[in-house]
Amino acid sequence: MIETDILIIGAGPTGLFAVFEAGLLKLRCHIIDALPSIGGQLTELYPKKPIFDIPGYPSVQAGDLIKNLYEQIKQFQPGFTMNEIAKTIDKQPDGTFIVTTDKGTQHHAKAIAIAAGLGSFEPRKPLIDNITDYEEKGVEYFVKDPEKYKDKKIVIAGGGDSALDWTIFLADIAKEVTLVHRRNEFRGALDSVEKVQSLKNQGKVNLITPAEIVGIQGSGKVESLVIEKEEQTFEKEVDYFIPLFGLTPKLGPIADWGLEIEKNAIKVNNALDYQTNIEGIYAIGDINTYPGKLKLILCGFHEATLMCQSIYNKIFPDRKYVLKYTTVGGIQGFDGTVKEAEKPVVKSIQ
Amino acid sequence: MIETDILIIGAGPTGLFAVFEAGLLKLRCHIIDALPSIGGQLTELYPKKPIFDIPGYPSVQAGDLIKNLYEQIKQFQPGFTMNEIAKTIDKQPDGTFIVTTDKGTQHHAKAIAIAAGLGSFEPRKPLIDNITDYEEKGVEYFVKDPEKYKDKKIVIAGGGDSALDWTIFLADIAKEVTLVHRRNEFRGALDSVEKVQSLKNQGKVNLITPAEIVGIQGSGKVESLVIEKEEQTFEKEVDYFIPLFGLTPKLGPIADWGLEIEKNAIKVNNALDYQTNIEGIYAIGDINTYPGKLKLILCGFHEATLMCQSIYNKIFPDRKYVLKYTTVGGIQGFDGTVKEAEKPVVKSIQ
Ligand SMILES: Cc1cc2nc3c(=O)[nH]c(=O)nc-3n(C[C@H](O)[C@H](O)[C@H](O)COP(=O)(O)OP(=O)(O)OC[C@H]3O[C@@H](n4cnc5c(N)ncnc54)[C@H](O)[C@@H]3O)c2cc1C
Ligand SMILES: Cc1cc2nc3c(=O)[nH]c(=O)nc-3n(C[C@H](O)[C@H](O)[C@H](O)COP(=O)(O)OP(=O)(O)OC[C@H]3O[C@@H](n4cnc5c(N)ncnc54)[C@H](O)[C@@H]3O)c2cc1C
Repeated sequence: MIETDILIIGAGPTGLFAVFEAGLLKLRCHIIDALPSIGGQLTELYPKKPIFDIPGYPSVQAGDLIKNLYEQIKQFQPGFTMNEIAKTIDKQPDGTFIVTTDKGTQHHAKAIAIAAGLGSFEPRKPLIDNITDYEEKGVEYFVKDPEKYKDKKIVIAGGGDSALDWTIFLADIAKEVTLVHRRNEFRGALDSVEKVQSLKNQGKVNLITPAEIVGIQGSGKVESLVIEKEEQTFEKEVDYFIPLFGLTPKLGPIADWGLEIEKNAIKVNNALDYQTNIEGIYAIGDINTYPGKLKLILCGFHEATLMCQSIYNKIFPDRKYVLKYTTVGGIQGFDGTVKEAEKPVVKSIQ
Repeated sequence: MIETDILIIGAGPTGLFAVFEAGLLKLRCHIIDALPSIGGQLTELYPKKPIFDIPGYPSVQAGDLIKNLYEQIKQFQPGFTMNEIAKTIDKQPDGTFIVTTDKGTQHHAKAIAIAAGLGSFEPRKPLIDNITDYEEKGVEYFVKDPEKYKDKKIVIAGGGDSALDWTIFLADIAKEVTLVHRRNEFRGALDSVEKVQSLKNQGKVNLITPAEIVGIQGSGKVESLVIEKEEQTFEKEVDYFIPLFGLTPKLGPIADWGLEIEKNAIKVNNALDYQTNIEGIYAIGDINTYPGKLKLILCGFHEATLMCQSIYNKIFPDRKYVLKYTTVGGIQGFDGTVKEAEKPVVKSIQ
């Protein structure tokens, strides 16, 4: 059983920043996310795109914002259960909670912060009858650990940025990379399209277009794919098949937690602390709704901050909290590191 | 009469960011501030100190945050009435407002955003009977335009960072810089104290400590100061006297605007849009209060954003607003500049 003060569901920008605000109050956090990487929509949907409305950043790449947020929170040593979906929340008689994932991992916490964005991201799967039989046996919807493709033959399917970018990245690692797309045209950053063209010209990647994967074969694991191109089918030997057709968010298990849901979002008390109808369970960021709600990153930051204060007051009803500016009080990380402003000196000038 | 959509009182981080969010909605802003520079507390109280809780910034100097905010908003060409205090707000029969400053400047706006922080910052003045007679006639509480001190004799009084920093800065510009402080010890960044020591050693600044300015003389403008040092007084010829004894915030005229005030702050409807008890007048940032309020910069950003949406809906009740992500829609400045994400290409690979 993983023990923590605040169990956060969702490692998007909102969930990440909550770790920081909790840390300032000496509360520890653990985060569950369905994806292999932190960053939520920013990492999965637009990592290389600029965002223009993060206050104080005239422009910041989504991926960089997540890197900076991680840099900011790491002093508070959040725990992570990645690649797992929070499935059930059970409130205990003492008011604490046990959260269990689809893989059975259990977490015990004093409060729950649902920062689940649009829901857990699930990959769009190609329509191949037996594909689920091969999942984690050669079929992968994310590139989690590129090293495992070393000296392997891989087929990537898709026509967007992810397919292009991983083709480029894996061309250097794998024994053979084949990109299959049902059109001749790819849609992505000019840069990436041109890079793939040049890798193809150099014979470093194979391109099969317009074509589709229509079958998977192999006993116990992927051994070959059936590819259909211009009404002809043929077989291709592979070790891994990586279909990258994008992700769709699914509210999924959240709908069954007894929370008030409105338009696929969780209703919260925005007049105070972003708590849901269940005491001790909060919802922050894109996943919540209230009058005037805007699904913006900067709003999630504020919501996370007020939520942490409320949780602190509930956990320590007897302590009188006095806000201390970070500039004045500095930051004491759980890892022993300290950040602080240079102290003024009092010194005579002769 | 200055015409604008949203008249913002206060050029702190909250007021500045409101310009950006308003600009996204094609609303124009004009800002009034009592100080000569933008940035509110960050510029006046701790420009060189790091802030650790701006989301996405593991650390940022207060002065840099303000620079970045200005960089972010300048596409939306805010107007500024600096160095003036908003004195009265008169609601017109048509629901618009006229705001008049202590110097008589009038502003006409569709909505008012009070982002006045702790109130308007006013300089702490030395206790010299006739000092007000010489204000703007040689006595200055801020260094607004350093160039005017060129080839002049100046006396700076004070023992903190401002006094040290301006002594250093003006040593290169003025004919003669004298720093007077009532103690031998200065309190400031080590760096600054050492720099002043070295300027003194080089004969580039005069230091008179422990001493106090006790009188001002001159007909129509400052001509000399009376300085008391170790129970002796003497006269010193000067062109400018700059006492830098810090600033104190004064709620001031805000208390007379018919707004609900609680603990020196304006009560707002945080369950919706941070509007005050007077329709069309909003209060955002440190100046407002509501259950759970935290006087933090990041909270002001959120409040400014929701406020702008509300103002937009009031000004254009018939338009259906659809949130557009900046990443997707880009930014169209009022100055004709455009920021946008690189567009994906659709391109075949042969
Ligand atoms: C193309 C695009 C451009 C955008 N541009 C901007 C912009 O310019 N400015 C802006 O402010 N916003 C923008 N947004 C919106 C912004 O990305 C979201 O507001 C932000 O991601 C919300 O953050 P979050 O942390 O609340 O949720 P998310 O980023 O959605 O993260 C939620 C995380 O929770 C996980 N999760 C959900 N349910 C579960 C579960 N049951 N178990 C485990 N994990 C779960 C998900 O896998 C996900 O990783 C844009 C969005 C898109 C798609
Ligand atoms: C030493 C110190 C350290 C801090 N550290 C942090 C930190 O680490 N993190 C954090 O989040 N916050 C910190 N803060 C608090 C932070 O500075 C404030 O939350 C922030 O400045 C509030 O911004 P604002 O725009 O609402 O108001 P302000 O910054 O106070 O700006 C208000 C402006 O309005 C003007 N004004 C007021 N009334 C009038 C009027 N009638 N007419 C004209 N102008 C008027 C004032 O002159 C001022 O310029 C710190 C504060 C201090 C003093």
